[in-house]
Amino acid sequence: MTEKTAITPATHTAPPAKFSLGVKKGNILQVAGQVGFLPAVEGQGPTPAGPTLREQTLQTLANVKAVLEEGGASWEDVMMVRVYLTNTDHFAEFNGIYNEYFADLKEAPAARTTVYVGLPMGLLVEIDALAVLG
Amino acid sequence: MTEKTAITPATHTAPPAKFSLGVKKGNILQVAGQVGFLPAVEGQGPTPAGPTLREQTLQTLANVKAVLEEGGASWEDVMMVRVYLTNTDHFAEFNGIYNEYFADLKEAPAARTTVYVGLPMGLLVEIDALAVLG
Amino acid sequence: MTEKTAITPATHTAPPAKFSLGVKKGNILQVAGQVGFLPAVEGQGPTPAGPTLREQTLQTLANVKAVLEEGGASWEDVMMVRVYLTNTDHFAEFNGIYNEYFADLKEAPAARTTVYVGLPMGLLVEIDALAVLG
Repeated sequence: MTEKTAITPATHTAPPAKFSLGVKKGNILQVAGQVGFLPAVEGQGPTPAGPTLREQTLQTLANVKAVLEEGGASWEDVMMVRVYLTNTDHFAEFNGIYNEYFADLKEAPAARTTVYVGLPMGLLVEIDALAVLG
Repeated sequence: MTEKTAITPATHTAPPAKFSLGVKKGNILQVAGQVGFLPAVEGQGPTPAGPTLREQTLQTLANVKAVLEEGGASWEDVMMVRVYLTNTDHFAEFNGIYNEYFADLKEAPAARTTVYVGLPMGLLVEIDALAVLG
Repeated sequence: MTEKTAITPATHTAPPAKFSLGVKKGNILQVAGQVGFLPAVEGQGPTPAGPTLREQTLQTLANVKAVLEEGGASWEDVMMVRVYLTNTDHFAEFNGIYNEYFADLKEAPAARTTVYVGLPMGLLVEIDALAVLG
């Protein structure tokens, strides 16, 4: 029996329902959909890093990374990144930010799917990730 | 060679194409996107449990659970739940229903991603799940 | 330590950002979201197979298959197919094409989730896939 553990970085705002920010079992680590909320501040609700795609994307990627690291993984272990944008016009700019962010990746980059959906609260991007630990 | 098996609860309406409601291989069990269709009735087409988010969400969760159980798993084994809603205004109500439904969960809750998409036939919610058996 | 490898069929257009068309680690193979772009032609940008759902769906499935095969897998190994359409009116036609395409599948068909999202460049369909090798 392999134990299933919740991954809960202290910096994150609490999930809005009974789900884990990340969960790990055996060599599989799944990161829940992250958005561009700033680190939690006692007594404050979730606050987006800013109104721009760049601000939100960098914060979202930082939030995914924090879950990976809390689970003993890193971007190098990620197999799949799911990107949810709200506007097809954001694709090129998003890719530029993504490339900068992953410039130093050593292992094979994760696969990725990008689709355009609705998101609440002025959020422009949501990202989740599946990692397989070595 | 690990066998890949289809999971087909007798209560479910048949898939509208050549896909499995669930599939299992080794310790991985994937549940296909479920919606709020009532259990199949001979000679009737798929019928949503009702027009409300609550009716459809509870039926959808029941349908996911039936696939998990047919595959020898339970919600406790689920790593990731993907939630597709059609209306950002449904988020709070959906979370309330989700929390009630999972109130008794013992293991770490699954990770989750929620995005807003289009769905046909008056459907308000679709959910799929990835489980890793222990 | 299991190696993570990128899967890059020679026929594919290059990814528009630092991600892999497919990635394999241990027995898990993840195919990135594929669309209906024709095989790459030196000096030309990505070109959809045509304006119709049929043309794009068949090309998209061929592109997923090429990644699977480059990674030593086949459709028989696929656990989950994620289908992103842009128009709920395409569901029936898409299912017809899907059924024809998979008519000769021997193993249990993959599970599937279908949702309706936005896609750029006149694309009507995007598909990704998760395979578990035997």
